[in-house]
Amino acid sequence: MSVELCELTKPVFIHNLKNMSAILKKAAKSAKERGIEPEVLLHSRLAPDMFPLVRQIQIITDNAKGCCARLTGAQAPVFEDGDDDFKQLQQRIAETIKFIKGLKKEQFVANSDSPIEMVVPIGVLHFTAEDYVKGWAFPNFYFHFTTAYNILRHNGVEVGKADFLGLVPGMTATGKIAKMLGVPQAKKSAKKVKKKAGGK
Amino acid sequence: MSVELCELTKPVFIHNLKNMSAILKKAAKSAKERGIEPEVLLHSRLAPDMFPLVRQIQIITDNAKGCCARLTGAQAPVFEDGDDDFKQLQQRIAETIKFIKGLKKEQFVANSDSPIEMVVPIGVLHFTAEDYVKGWAFPNFYFHFTTAYNILRHNGVEVGKADFLGLVPGMTATGKIAKMLGVPQAKKSAKKVKKKAGGK
Repeated sequence: MSVELCELTKPVFIHNLKNMSAILKKAAKSAKERGIEPEVLLHSRLAPDMFPLVRQIQIITDNAKGCCARLTGAQAPVFEDGDDDFKQLQQRIAETIKFIKGLKKEQFVANSDSPIEMVVPIGVLHFTAEDYVKGWAFPNFYFHFTTAYNILRHNGVEVGKADFLGLVPGMTATGKIAKMLGVPQAKKSAKKVKKKAGGK
Repeated sequence: MSVELCELTKPVFIHNLKNMSAILKKAAKSAKERGIEPEVLLHSRLAPDMFPLVRQIQIITDNAKGCCARLTGAQAPVFEDGDDDFKQLQQRIAETIKFIKGLKKEQFVANSDSPIEMVVPIGVLHFTAEDYVKGWAFPNFYFHFTTAYNILRHNGVEVGKADFLGLVPGMTATGKIAKMLGVPQAKKSAKKVKKKAGGK
Protein backbone atom coordinates (compact mmCIF):
# COMPACT_ATOMS: atom_id res chain seq x y z
CA MET A 1 0.00 0.00 0.00
CA SER A 2 2.84 2.36 0.70
CA VAL A 3 6.61 2.46 0.44
CA GLU A 4 8.88 1.62 3.38
CA LEU A 5 11.69 4.11 4.06
CA CYS A 6 14.27 1.35 3.67
CA GLU A 7 12.87 0.31 0.28
CA LEU A 8 12.52 3.94 -0.75
CA THR A 9 16.18 4.75 -0.17
CA LYS A 10 18.57 1.79 0.08
CA PRO A 11 18.03 0.18 -3.35
CA VAL A 12 17.68 3.58 -5.04
CA PHE A 13 21.06 4.81 -3.82
CA ILE A 14 22.75 1.50 -4.65
CA HIS A 15 21.26 1.44 -8.15
CA ASN A 16 22.23 5.02 -8.95
CA LEU A 17 25.73 4.73 -7.47
CA LYS A 18 26.28 1.70 -9.72
CA ASN A 19 25.11 3.79 -12.68
CA MET A 20 27.52 6.56 -11.65
CA SER A 21 30.33 4.02 -11.45
CA ALA A 22 29.58 2.68 -14.94
CA ILE A 23 29.42 6.22 -16.36
CA LEU A 24 32.79 7.04 -14.75
CA LYS A 25 34.32 3.94 -16.35
CA LYS A 26 33.16 5.20 -19.75
CA ALA A 27 34.59 8.63 -18.92
CA ALA A 28 38.00 7.19 -18.02
CA LYS A 29 37.98 5.12 -21.23
CA SER A 30 36.94 8.14 -23.29
CA ALA A 31 39.75 10.25 -21.83
CA LYS A 32 42.27 7.53 -22.64
CA GLU A 33 41.03 7.02 -26.19
CA ARG A 34 40.99 10.74 -26.94
CA GLY A 35 44.39 11.37 -25.38
CA ILE A 36 42.93 13.62 -22.67
CA GLU A 37 44.53 13.74 -19.22
CA PRO A 38 41.98 12.32 -16.74
CA GLU A 39 42.49 15.41 -14.57
CA VAL A 40 41.05 17.58 -17.32
CA LEU A 41 37.69 15.81 -17.03
CA LEU A 42 37.90 15.52 -13.24
CA HIS A 43 38.50 19.25 -12.85
CA SER A 44 35.88 20.33 -15.41
CA ARG A 45 32.98 22.50 -14.29
CA LEU A 46 29.83 23.84 -15.94
CA ALA A 47 30.41 27.29 -14.46
CA PRO A 48 33.41 28.84 -12.66
CA ASP A 49 31.51 28.89 -9.37
CA MET A 50 30.19 25.33 -9.58
CA PHE A 51 32.01 22.28 -8.26
CA PRO A 52 34.19 20.22 -10.64
CA LEU A 53 33.42 16.61 -11.54
CA VAL A 54 35.60 15.13 -8.78
CA ARG A 55 33.66 17.03 -6.11
CA GLN A 56 30.28 16.14 -7.61
CA ILE A 57 31.15 12.45 -7.22
CA GLN A 58 32.40 12.94 -3.69
CA ILE A 59 29.17 14.74 -2.81
CA ILE A 60 26.86 12.05 -4.18
CA THR A 61 28.61 9.43 -2.07
CA ASP A 62 28.24 11.77 0.93
CA ASN A 63 24.55 12.32 0.14
CA ALA A 64 23.85 8.60 -0.15
CA LYS A 65 25.78 7.42 2.92
CA GLY A 66 24.68 10.46 4.94
CA CYS A 67 21.03 9.82 4.23
CA CYS A 68 21.26 6.13 5.10
CA ALA A 69 23.29 6.88 8.23
CA ARG A 70 20.70 9.40 9.45
CA LEU A 71 17.82 7.02 8.76
CA THR A 72 19.49 4.15 10.60
CA GLY A 73 21.81 5.67 13.19
CA ALA A 74 24.63 3.59 11.67
CA GLN A 75 28.13 5.04 11.46
CA ALA A 76 28.96 5.83 7.84
CA PRO A 77 32.50 5.46 6.51
CA VAL A 78 34.45 8.73 6.42
CA PHE A 79 36.31 9.69 3.24
CA GLU A 80 38.87 12.43 2.72
CA ASP A 81 37.89 14.90 0.04
CA GLY A 82 41.22 14.90 -1.74
CA ASP A 83 42.08 15.36 -5.37
CA ASP A 84 40.86 11.88 -6.23
CA ASP A 85 41.60 10.17 -9.54
CA PHE A 86 39.13 7.88 -11.31
CA LYS A 87 40.36 4.85 -9.41
CA GLN A 88 39.96 6.53 -6.03
CA LEU A 89 36.48 7.74 -6.94
CA GLN A 90 35.51 4.20 -7.94
CA GLN A 91 36.85 2.99 -4.60
CA ARG A 92 34.82 5.62 -2.77
CA ILE A 93 31.64 4.64 -4.64
CA ALA A 94 32.29 0.94 -3.94
CA GLU A 95 32.77 1.57 -0.21
CA THR A 96 29.60 3.66 -0.10
CA ILE A 97 27.63 0.87 -1.79
CA LYS A 98 29.11 -1.67 0.63
CA PHE A 99 28.05 0.42 3.64
CA ILE A 100 24.50 0.87 2.34
CA LYS A 101 24.18 -2.80 1.33
CA GLY A 102 25.10 -3.83 4.86
CA LEU A 103 22.18 -1.96 6.43
CA LYS A 104 19.26 -4.08 7.54
CA LYS A 105 15.61 -3.12 7.21
CA GLU A 106 15.13 -3.16 10.98
CA GLN A 107 17.88 -0.54 11.43
CA PHE A 108 15.84 2.09 9.59
CA VAL A 109 13.67 4.46 11.63
CA ALA A 110 10.29 2.90 12.22
CA ASN A 111 8.14 5.86 11.28
CA SER A 112 8.05 8.27 8.40
CA ASP A 113 7.63 11.11 10.91
CA SER A 114 10.62 10.10 13.04
CA PRO A 115 12.82 13.17 13.65
CA ILE A 116 15.98 13.57 11.57
CA GLU A 117 18.71 16.03 12.50
CA MET A 118 21.37 17.23 10.14
CA VAL A 119 24.25 19.02 11.81
CA VAL A 120 25.95 21.71 9.70
CA PRO A 121 28.74 24.10 10.74
CA ILE A 122 26.34 26.92 11.62
CA GLY A 123 23.39 25.08 13.08
CA VAL A 124 21.14 22.07 12.81
CA LEU A 125 18.47 21.25 10.23
CA HIS A 126 15.42 19.37 11.48
CA PHE A 127 12.98 17.27 9.43
CA THR A 128 10.72 14.28 9.69
CA ALA A 129 12.29 11.27 7.96
CA GLU A 130 9.80 11.54 5.11
CA ASP A 131 10.36 15.27 4.55
CA TYR A 132 14.11 14.74 4.73
CA VAL A 133 14.13 12.06 2.04
CA LYS A 134 11.65 13.82 -0.26
CA GLY A 135 12.83 17.40 0.11
CA TRP A 136 16.52 17.13 0.91
CA ALA A 137 18.22 13.77 0.30
CA PHE A 138 16.78 12.86 -3.11
CA PRO A 139 16.87 16.32 -4.72
CA ASN A 140 20.47 16.80 -3.57
CA PHE A 141 21.57 13.34 -4.68
CA TYR A 142 20.01 13.59 -8.12
CA PHE A 143 21.26 17.16 -8.50
CA HIS A 144 24.91 16.15 -8.12
CA PHE A 145 24.50 12.88 -10.05
CA THR A 146 22.96 14.75 -13.01
CA THR A 147 25.55 17.50 -12.80
CA ALA A 148 28.37 14.93 -12.92
CA TYR A 149 26.70 13.40 -15.97
CA ASN A 150 26.22 16.83 -17.58
CA ILE A 151 29.89 17.76 -17.07
CA LEU A 152 30.86 14.59 -18.95
CA ARG A 153 28.33 15.14 -21.75
CA HIS A 154 29.50 18.74 -22.08
CA ASN A 155 33.02 17.37 -22.52
CA GLY A 156 32.06 14.95 -25.27
CA VAL A 157 31.95 11.70 -23.30
CA GLU A 158 29.58 9.38 -25.13
CA VAL A 159 27.06 8.48 -22.47
CA GLY A 160 23.29 8.67 -22.75
CA LYS A 161 20.10 8.60 -20.75
CA ALA A 162 20.24 4.79 -20.68
CA ASP A 163 23.50 5.02 -18.72
CA PHE A 164 21.94 7.48 -16.30
CA LEU A 165 18.82 5.38 -15.67
CA GLY A 166 20.60 2.03 -15.81
CA LEU A 167 18.53 -1.14 -16.13
CA VAL A 168 15.50 0.08 -14.17
CA PRO A 169 14.83 -2.43 -11.34
CA GLY A 170 11.60 -4.35 -11.93
CA MET A 171 10.97 -2.91 -15.40
CA THR A 172 9.85 -5.25 -18.17
CA ALA A 173 8.64 -4.37 -21.67
CA THR A 174 6.66 -5.57 -24.67
CA GLY A 175 7.36 -4.69 -28.29
CA LYS A 176 10.58 -3.60 -29.95
CA ILE A 177 11.62 -1.49 -26.99
CA ALA A 178 12.28 -4.59 -24.86
CA LYS A 179 15.17 -5.67 -27.09
CA MET A 180 16.38 -2.11 -27.55
CA LEU A 181 16.69 -1.52 -23.79
CA GLY A 182 17.78 -5.06 -23.05
CA VAL A 183 14.98 -5.51 -20.49
CA PRO A 184 12.97 -8.68 -19.86
CA GLN A 185 9.92 -9.31 -22.04
CA ALA A 186 6.77 -8.60 -19.98
CA LYS A 187 4.34 -11.41 -19.34
CA LYS A 188 0.98 -10.98 -21.06
CA SER A 189 -1.27 -8.98 -18.79
CA ALA A 190 -4.22 -10.66 -17.12
CA LYS A 191 -6.53 -8.37 -19.07
CA LYS A 192 -5.22 -9.54 -22.43
CA VAL A 193 -5.37 -13.20 -21.43
CA LYS A 194 -8.99 -12.74 -20.40
CA LYS A 195 -9.78 -11.09 -23.71
CA LYS A 196 -8.32 -14.01 -25.66
CA ALA A 197 -10.30 -16.46 -23.59
CA GLY A 198 -13.46 -14.57 -24.42
CA GLY A 199 -13.78 -12.97 -21.01
CA LYS A 200 -15.12 -9.46 -20.50
CA MET B 1 5.52 3.90 9.13
CA SER B 2 5.84 4.19 5.38
CA VAL B 3 5.17 6.70 2.65
CA GLU B 4 1.92 6.73 0.63
CA LEU B 5 2.32 6.94 -3.16
CA CYS B 6 0.22 10.10 -3.22
CA GLU B 7 2.38 11.77 -0.56
CA LEU B 8 5.54 10.51 -2.25
CA THR B 9 4.73 12.11 -5.60
CA LYS B 10 2.07 14.84 -5.58
CA PRO B 11 3.68 17.38 -3.19
CA VAL B 12 7.17 16.61 -4.54
CA PHE B 13 6.24 17.45 -8.13
CA ILE B 14 4.32 20.56 -7.09
CA HIS B 15 7.21 21.80 -4.94
CA ASN B 16 9.84 21.26 -7.61
CA LEU B 17 7.71 22.71 -10.42
CA LYS B 18 7.29 25.85 -8.30
CA ASN B 19 11.07 25.95 -7.85
CA MET B 20 11.52 25.57 -11.63
CA SER B 21 9.06 28.41 -12.18
CA ALA B 22 10.93 30.71 -9.78
CA ILE B 23 14.26 29.84 -11.44
CA LEU B 24 12.79 30.63 -14.87
CA LYS B 25 11.61 34.01 -13.62
CA LYS B 26 15.18 34.78 -12.54
CA ALA B 27 16.41 33.60 -15.93
CA ALA B 28 14.02 35.88 -17.82
CA LYS B 29 15.05 38.81 -15.59
CA SER B 30 18.73 38.01 -16.08
CA ALA B 31 18.32 37.94 -19.87
CA LYS B 32 16.56 41.31 -19.81
CA GLU B 33 19.14 42.93 -17.53
CA ARG B 34 22.05 41.63 -19.57
CA GLY B 35 20.47 42.56 -22.92
CA ILE B 36 20.31 38.92 -24.02
CA GLU B 37 17.44 37.77 -26.27
CA PRO B 38 15.35 35.27 -24.26
CA GLU B 39 15.62 32.83 -27.17
CA VAL B 40 19.36 32.60 -26.65
CA LEU B 41 18.85 31.10 -23.20
CA LEU B 42 15.83 29.03 -24.27
CA HIS B 43 17.79 27.44 -27.13
CA SER B 44 20.99 26.85 -25.12
CA ARG B 45 22.26 23.30 -24.67
CA LEU B 46 25.09 21.70 -22.71
CA ALA B 47 26.06 19.55 -25.71
CA PRO B 48 25.00 19.66 -29.37
CA ASP B 49 23.09 16.38 -28.99
CA MET B 50 21.31 17.32 -25.76
CA PHE B 51 17.94 19.08 -25.59
CA PRO B 52 17.84 22.88 -25.23
CA LEU B 53 16.38 24.62 -22.18
CA VAL B 54 12.89 25.00 -23.65
CA ARG B 55 12.62 21.23 -24.22
CA GLN B 56 13.98 20.43 -20.74
CA ILE B 57 11.14 22.43 -19.21
CA GLN B 58 8.55 20.82 -21.46
CA ILE B 59 9.86 17.40 -20.47
CA ILE B 60 9.70 18.01 -16.71
CA THR B 61 6.05 19.03 -17.00
CA ASP B 62 5.44 15.87 -19.06
CA ASN B 63 7.29 13.76 -16.46
CA ALA B 64 5.29 15.21 -13.59
CA LYS B 65 1.81 15.09 -15.16
CA GLY B 66 2.54 11.74 -16.84
CA CYS B 67 3.56 10.15 -13.55
CA CYS B 68 0.52 11.46 -11.68
CA ALA B 69 -1.80 10.49 -14.56
CA ARG B 70 -0.44 6.92 -14.58
CA LEU B 71 -0.76 6.62 -10.80
CA THR B 72 -4.35 7.86 -10.79
CA GLY B 73 -5.83 7.05 -14.20
CA ALA B 74 -6.73 10.74 -14.53
CA GLN B 75 -6.51 12.44 -17.91
CA ALA B 76 -3.55 14.83 -17.94
CA PRO B 77 -3.69 18.08 -19.92
CA VAL B 78 -2.01 17.86 -23.33
CA PHE B 79 0.48 20.54 -24.34
CA GLU B 80 1.96 21.22 -27.76
CA ASP B 81 5.75 21.11 -27.77
CA GLY B 82 6.21 24.33 -29.69
CA ASP B 83 8.96 26.93 -29.56
CA ASP B 84 7.66 28.28 -26.25
CA ASP B 85 8.83 31.57 -24.78
CA PHE B 86 9.28 32.15 -21.04
CA LYS B 87 5.63 33.19 -20.63
CA GLN B 88 4.34 30.06 -22.36
CA LEU B 89 6.62 27.84 -20.29
CA GLN B 90 5.33 29.48 -17.11
CA GLN B 91 1.79 28.83 -18.32
CA ARG B 92 2.64 25.18 -18.99
CA ILE B 93 4.14 24.77 -15.52
CA ALA B 94 1.11 26.47 -13.93
CA GLU B 95 -1.33 24.18 -15.75
CA THR B 96 0.68 21.12 -14.74
CA ILE B 97 0.64 22.19 -11.10
CA LYS B 98 -3.11 22.85 -11.34
CA PHE B 99 -3.73 19.35 -12.73
CA ILE B 100 -1.63 17.68 -10.02
CA LYS B 101 -3.13 19.79 -7.22
CA GLY B 102 -6.61 18.67 -8.30
CA LEU B 103 -5.84 14.97 -7.79
CA LYS B 104 -7.30 13.43 -4.67
CA LYS B 105 -5.57 10.86 -2.49
CA GLU B 106 -8.23 8.25 -3.22
CA GLN B 107 -7.55 8.50 -6.97
CA PHE B 108 -4.02 7.11 -6.54
CA VAL B 109 -3.48 3.38 -7.04
CA ALA B 110 -4.08 1.58 -3.80
CA ASN B 111 -0.97 -0.59 -3.75
CA SER B 112 2.70 0.03 -4.32
CA ASP B 113 2.77 -3.11 -6.50
CA SER B 114 -0.16 -2.03 -8.70
CA PRO B 115 0.82 -2.42 -12.37
CA ILE B 116 1.80 0.69 -14.32
CA GLU B 117 2.02 0.71 -18.11
CA MET B 118 3.86 3.32 -20.10
CA VAL B 119 3.08 3.30 -23.80
CA VAL B 120 5.92 4.44 -26.06
CA PRO B 121 5.99 4.47 -29.88
CA ILE B 122 7.74 1.10 -30.15
CA GLY B 123 6.20 -0.82 -27.27
CA VAL B 124 5.04 -0.70 -23.69
CA LEU B 125 7.06 -0.43 -20.47
CA HIS B 126 5.71 -2.29 -17.44
CA PHE B 127 6.47 -1.62 -13.77
CA THR B 128 4.92 -1.83 -10.36
CA ALA B 129 3.88 1.63 -9.15
CA GLU B 130 6.75 1.67 -6.65
CA ASP B 131 9.39 0.64 -9.19
CA TYR B 132 8.01 3.16 -11.67
CA VAL B 133 8.26 6.07 -9.24
CA LYS B 134 11.67 5.09 -7.84
CA GLY B 135 13.42 3.96 -11.01
CA TRP B 136 11.76 5.95 -13.78
CA ALA B 137 9.62 8.95 -12.77
CA PHE B 138 11.89 10.56 -10.16
CA PRO B 139 15.26 10.01 -11.89
CA ASN B 140 13.84 11.37 -15.16
CA PHE B 141 12.19 14.34 -13.51
CA TYR B 142 15.25 15.36 -11.50
CA PHE B 143 17.49 14.75 -14.52
CA HIS B 144 15.68 17.30 -16.66
CA PHE B 145 15.12 19.74 -13.79
CA THR B 146 18.82 19.71 -12.94
CA THR B 147 19.81 19.98 -16.60
CA ALA B 148 17.57 23.03 -17.04
CA TYR B 149 19.24 24.56 -13.97
CA ASN B 150 22.70 23.65 -15.27
CA ILE B 151 22.03 25.23 -18.67
CA LEU B 152 21.15 28.48 -16.90
CA ARG B 153 24.16 28.33 -14.54
CA HIS B 154 26.41 27.62 -17.53
CA ASN B 155 25.01 30.78 -19.13
CA GLY B 156 25.70 32.98 -16.15
CA VAL B 157 22.23 33.20 -14.64
CA GLU B 158 22.64 33.91 -10.93
CA VAL B 159 20.74 31.07 -9.30
CA GLY B 160 22.00 28.75 -6.58
CA LYS B 161 21.26 25.50 -4.79
CA ALA B 162 18.75 27.32 -2.57
CA ASP B 163 16.67 28.09 -5.68
CA PHE B 164 16.85 24.46 -6.76
CA LEU B 165 15.81 23.06 -3.36
CA GLY B 166 13.35 25.83 -2.56
CA LEU B 167 12.05 26.17 0.98
CA VAL B 168 12.14 22.48 1.89
CA PRO B 169 8.65 21.47 3.10
CA GLY B 170 8.64 20.67 6.80
CA MET B 171 12.23 21.75 7.40
CA THR B 172 13.04 23.83 10.48
CA ALA B 173 16.43 24.81 11.85
CA THR B 174 18.35 25.95 14.90
CA GLY B 175 21.38 28.21 14.92
CA LYS B 176 22.50 30.80 12.38
CA ILE B 177 21.44 28.65 9.46
CA ALA B 178 17.73 29.19 10.27
CA LYS B 179 17.96 32.89 9.48
CA MET B 180 20.28 32.31 6.52
CA LEU B 181 17.87 29.91 4.84
CA GLY B 182 14.78 31.79 5.99
CA VAL B 183 13.33 28.64 7.56
CA PRO B 184 11.32 28.44 10.78
CA GLN B 185 13.25 28.14 14.05
CA ALA B 186 12.95 24.55 15.32
CA LYS B 187 11.26 23.99 18.64
CA LYS B 188 13.57 22.85 21.40
CA SER B 189 13.72 19.10 21.34
CA ALA B 190 12.16 17.13 24.18
CA LYS B 191 15.62 15.90 25.10
CA LYS B 192 16.97 19.41 25.63
CA VAL B 193 13.94 20.49 27.65
CA LYS B 194 14.37 17.48 29.88
CA LYS B 195 18.02 18.30 30.37
CA LYS B 196 17.19 21.83 31.50
CA ALA B 197 14.59 20.51 33.90
CA GLY B 198 17.20 18.24 35.38
CA GLY B 199 15.79 15.11 33.83
CA LYS B 200 17.98 12.26 32.66
